[in-house]
Amino acid sequence: MESLVLERTKELSLRDFPIEKEETLGPHDVRIKLHTVGICGSDVHYYTHGRIGPFVVNSPMILGHEASGAVLEVGAEVTSLKAGDRVCMEPGIPDPNSRATRLGMYNVDPAVRFWATPPVHGILRPTCVHPENFTFKLPDNVSFAEAAMVEPLAVGIHAATKARIKPGDVALVMGAGPIGLVTALAALASGCARVYVSDLADAKLEIAAGLGPVTPINVTRENVAERILKETDGWGVEIIFEATGSPKAAATIFEALCPGGCAVMIGGQSDPIAYDAGAAMVREARVENIFRYAHVFPRCVAMIGSGAIDVKPLITRTFPFKDSVHAFEVAASAPPGDVKMQIEMPH
Amino acid sequence: MESLVLERTKELSLRDFPIEKEETLGPHDVRIKLHTVGICGSDVHYYTHGRIGPFVVNSPMILGHEASGAVLEVGAEVTSLKAGDRVCMEPGIPDPNSRATRLGMYNVDPAVRFWATPPVHGILRPTCVHPENFTFKLPDNVSFAEAAMVEPLAVGIHAATKARIKPGDVALVMGAGPIGLVTALAALASGCARVYVSDLADAKLEIAAGLGPVTPINVTRENVAERILKETDGWGVEIIFEATGSPKAAATIFEALCPGGCAVMIGGQSDPIAYDAGAAMVREARVENIFRYAHVFPRCVAMIGSGAIDVKPLITRTFPFKDSVHAFEVAASAPPGDVKMQIEMPH
Amino acid sequence: MESLVLERTKELSLRDFPIEKEETLGPHDVRIKLHTVGICGSDVHYYTHGRIGPFVVNSPMILGHEASGAVLEVGAEVTSLKAGDRVCMEPGIPDPNSRATRLGMYNVDPAVRFWATPPVHGILRPTCVHPENFTFKLPDNVSFAEAAMVEPLAVGIHAATKARIKPGDVALVMGAGPIGLVTALAALASGCARVYVSDLADAKLEIAAGLGPVTPINVTRENVAERILKETDGWGVEIIFEATGSPKAAATIFEALCPGGCAVMIGGQSDPIAYDAGAAMVREARVENIFRYAHVFPRCVAMIGSGAIDVKPLITRTFPFKDSVHAFEVAASAPPGDVKMQIEMPH
Amino acid sequence: MESLVLERTKELSLRDFPIEKEETLGPHDVRIKLHTVGICGSDVHYYTHGRIGPFVVNSPMILGHEASGAVLEVGAEVTSLKAGDRVCMEPGIPDPNSRATRLGMYNVDPAVRFWATPPVHGILRPTCVHPENFTFKLPDNVSFAEAAMVEPLAVGIHAATKARIKPGDVALVMGAGPIGLVTALAALASGCARVYVSDLADAKLEIAAGLGPVTPINVTRENVAERILKETDGWGVEIIFEATGSPKAAATIFEALCPGGCAVMIGGQSDPIAYDAGAAMVREARVENIFRYAHVFPRCVAMIGSGAIDVKPLITRTFPFKDSVHAFEVAASAPPGDVKMQIEMPH
Repeated sequence: MESLVLERTKELSLRDFPIEKEETLGPHDVRIKLHTVGICGSDVHYYTHGRIGPFVVNSPMILGHEASGAVLEVGAEVTSLKAGDRVCMEPGIPDPNSRATRLGMYNVDPAVRFWATPPVHGILRPTCVHPENFTFKLPDNVSFAEAAMVEPLAVGIHAATKARIKPGDVALVMGAGPIGLVTALAALASGCARVYVSDLADAKLEIAAGLGPVTPINVTRENVAERILKETDGWGVEIIFEATGSPKAAATIFEALCPGGCAVMIGGQSDPIAYDAGAAMVREARVENIFRYAHVFPRCVAMIGSGAIDVKPLITRTFPFKDSVHAFEVAASAPPGDVKMQIEMPH
Repeated sequence: MESLVLERTKELSLRDFPIEKEETLGPHDVRIKLHTVGICGSDVHYYTHGRIGPFVVNSPMILGHEASGAVLEVGAEVTSLKAGDRVCMEPGIPDPNSRATRLGMYNVDPAVRFWATPPVHGILRPTCVHPENFTFKLPDNVSFAEAAMVEPLAVGIHAATKARIKPGDVALVMGAGPIGLVTALAALASGCARVYVSDLADAKLEIAAGLGPVTPINVTRENVAERILKETDGWGVEIIFEATGSPKAAATIFEALCPGGCAVMIGGQSDPIAYDAGAAMVREARVENIFRYAHVFPRCVAMIGSGAIDVKPLITRTFPFKDSVHAFEVAASAPPGDVKMQIEMPH
Repeated sequence: MESLVLERTKELSLRDFPIEKEETLGPHDVRIKLHTVGICGSDVHYYTHGRIGPFVVNSPMILGHEASGAVLEVGAEVTSLKAGDRVCMEPGIPDPNSRATRLGMYNVDPAVRFWATPPVHGILRPTCVHPENFTFKLPDNVSFAEAAMVEPLAVGIHAATKARIKPGDVALVMGAGPIGLVTALAALASGCARVYVSDLADAKLEIAAGLGPVTPINVTRENVAERILKETDGWGVEIIFEATGSPKAAATIFEALCPGGCAVMIGGQSDPIAYDAGAAMVREARVENIFRYAHVFPRCVAMIGSGAIDVKPLITRTFPFKDSVHAFEVAASAPPGDVKMQIEMPH
Repeated sequence: MESLVLERTKELSLRDFPIEKEETLGPHDVRIKLHTVGICGSDVHYYTHGRIGPFVVNSPMILGHEASGAVLEVGAEVTSLKAGDRVCMEPGIPDPNSRATRLGMYNVDPAVRFWATPPVHGILRPTCVHPENFTFKLPDNVSFAEAAMVEPLAVGIHAATKARIKPGDVALVMGAGPIGLVTALAALASGCARVYVSDLADAKLEIAAGLGPVTPINVTRENVAERILKETDGWGVEIIFEATGSPKAAATIFEALCPGGCAVMIGGQSDPIAYDAGAAMVREARVENIFRYAHVFPRCVAMIGSGAIDVKPLITRTFPFKDSVHAFEVAASAPPGDVKMQIEMPH
């Protein structure tokens, strides 16, 4: 019964970790046996750098926050779940009494406790205890692997929601990493007639091109704005999603945007970016800044379940849990042909 | 060079009609050879009843307003189109100086001139002159038949736009006629995880069921609200589209609606309907009332062109123009297995 | 230490009532000494009819839900309030775990427990225990009498919020009762350039006319829509608030509404109303249906405190608690010159 | 019959200028005798620098674009105005056929012709010809001086509209120049319970403090964000309007903003600004970028006419036209106690 523990920067181990004894099952909680866990860029970044911004790994921490599993037991007042149910879990738990939570925006509650964000442990471990309200039952036709994609997909769906896409809009997604591609899926499912996806890597753009009416653009060979303005009679796209996290890319977010369009900042930035206020002004651009997601997990489950969204093309590699240290080494090498790698827990 | 003329109620003829001599090509106009024209319920209603509300057919009128064709010549200041371009046309032309038009809501300008709405002639005729701004070039992969579906699809896309669908919403479309089905297509393409479609006719519901993640409900055998509330844990659907035009159906629009949900009135009603204000209140329902569409034709063309929406399953029968009187007789008999019938002009 | 008890329909008494012994102070609660309580139409209706829709007074019930007071003691985890603080209280407490509450719409949670709605007691009594989250501290310059107006004002502010007023809109408020007048105040403070108020009673319209740029219209002498259309060049008003609760008035809500306008249903209706779907359609009207309010109490307190809204002209009579049975008799007689009557508790 | 001509940078003259002979009165135009013209910062900047961004004064140009006057004659198809009507005029005329204009966003049409923006002349001259659609009749109680304030007020009202203020919001306006102060007026009239105004100059802050529930903050003595967070229990303000045009101020726009809040960029920036993407992200800030205004002139006229907004405190000095060169010299010296200076034309 081992967990994947980040002992310190660049040192992972599979070992017993006594966290589960500390977890008591409250009346509104469920206990879950983990099944599949996706590897996120943030997990890899803690592994390689030991910190993300103000969040520093000061003591051994279990990694992982994109998870599916099966319910083992439920608390006394749980009504929507029962032992045996297949589920996926939302990794951030807010303070129910905070002002932001009560307004319906729990993702911007500063008190959120989020898996695998120090000092909170992640879930690359045998079991976890989680609140019923943040645990979502899966339809029979949604696999554990697809369910472990709900967490990244939720970022894309939240971004698409905030963008307020109108049917027939055209979008540009900057970046074809996992977040860029779930955003492209979300944009297509949310009404876009076409989505441009830009990236440096042809292997990723090829995957993007297979997701639907997607036009890939390799930024090393083409100017994105020029191409788009040419193909839209000089108008531009209605929505631009910035999903690279690159300050250089972020500085260009208005270039291909149409009058009255919306730029959505998804990719995190460690430093202030150069914001072309003049370009934003003459277009009366709206800019939405996205932080994780709120209230979208059940929506993602429903969309995968109905076939409205197919996340399977993004799962490019799966490792057994016993190889999870190797999995992180592979992930840290950033293979260009991979989007999402997942770890299957012992079962 | 004949036109299809409604001489008077229940009397159609194919004959020469001198309207085209009166049409001069202004600098912002194009002249179009008609190719395919869909038969709309309103065309049939003028044929069978001679009027719709205040619009009365007092003298012979050419029918038809769902149209595609090819550009024959262009006015002096036309820049976006040229002879030979394949196009579809928006049938309503507003006053560019009206207050509503200037605010971007030209569909609610009372001065709109709309094809086949007395005293304005329709386009079941060889050619027509139309403003460039309301004529839209087709991509090569969009057929004339699909292009003649843009007009009804525009109603569905406009309704979906007004509904402000969020990704993962579940919707109910009441009515599986042509407008109900284009609305179902629009709702699915605009972010719905699933769409319930209710109707009396199994043949229409079968077509609905083939359009994607659609759950058909035959109202003669099942209570729609009970079924939906049971399948949504008592919550209901986020959006309800009323597309039957039946006052009895309209009186139930809040029954299956979730708290904070939106009901969209698409189907026209000739008399006041019974509005359950108490049911609307406890849900804080939003009601959107739809009149035709504005600014959505190019969006529909783009969505058909990219494959985001496939209208072909809705085109159930095609008649050559020489049989168009017969086509109207068939349409007036309302065959349950048909959705959209079209007429192909001579070419 | 008496309470005002509705013993049965049309029978009120001032007497000891043992409810307070049952109230324990939880860690997130405060105990409050009541100071001022407004008389609401619903209180009067329970007094005169013994029921409102499905809510029936089957056993003696304390009336009153528009209240201000002073904190006596606070629970162990209360941080925002302390003994001695002057406060007003929101009368409806939702289930924090309901789906609607978590989405930020607690007012449409069916499990809300609301003061003076059977079987929940009201607060015409010496003290009450209330959750910190629904108790709001008053600025020094807001009197207890003004604070007891926050509850009805909240209805108007919520309605104005849902209407999404744009600066410079013109509105019509149908009905100059307490809810109509707080709605007029809210509309003026929220951006309206002018508000028309219609009613049958000149005395109420005179009060309306004193609230700011208000145009009163007496419906017994003038046709409201004709007057408005004449004064707006045939365009109409951007927002109509229905605050009469009269089905006859509700049937006319679209007559004076401009294209793209919004009708807000505030007044409760016991039966379905006649909804002019054709009039709604040609305007593409949006209809918002309002149920109480959510998240607006602190906003109302702030607006009264800053002077953005002045509720004092609406408080037309004040009774000492010992005369509260008489106060209800007066209220039940519906004197045309009165808007809000209040009761001052012993202190 | 002289005009105020900018001959070249820093050289103004009052002289005859033959422009009016070139102006023909089209059927939809009116001819107007100018009465009052406000001096805008852009007029002064052309005077002192000869250019604003890409707009360069290459030949003599008449200045002025904030104007009121009286109709002299009307074109054949004008219906809403007649000779003698007192009016104010919107200075930017878009292409009615542009895509942006047809969508209702004419302010972002790149083809807009705007008074006193090279090569288009302004209106510090005896008469001008202007389209009926952009000329607005004044109520009797609105003076020419107030009417000449409609243009700057329109910027504030447009910004407040885009911000989508909810009743009871608290706002911060950064900058107490003319645009900052009209924005403060607009925010107060549009539902804000309180507005913080920050600036360097006590004289300007004193004027701000007189406009309503305004809290002035002098940034040379206080940290704005600290003050606001302290007074809002750490929450922040719902809306921040950036009206300084200073890159240093713009770099701080998220500091005092609450979770889910909106920052509105009004002040023009000549270079990219430093955008704190991390601060924007954790708040999920929405950023609206404003360019002039659209469809708000009649709203401003109505709000001034009804008393909803009082612009008179912002008019701090008035010059006769014969002293207009001096007026520009004074304006160029940026006296700290002045907000808006106006020029009265000969009449």
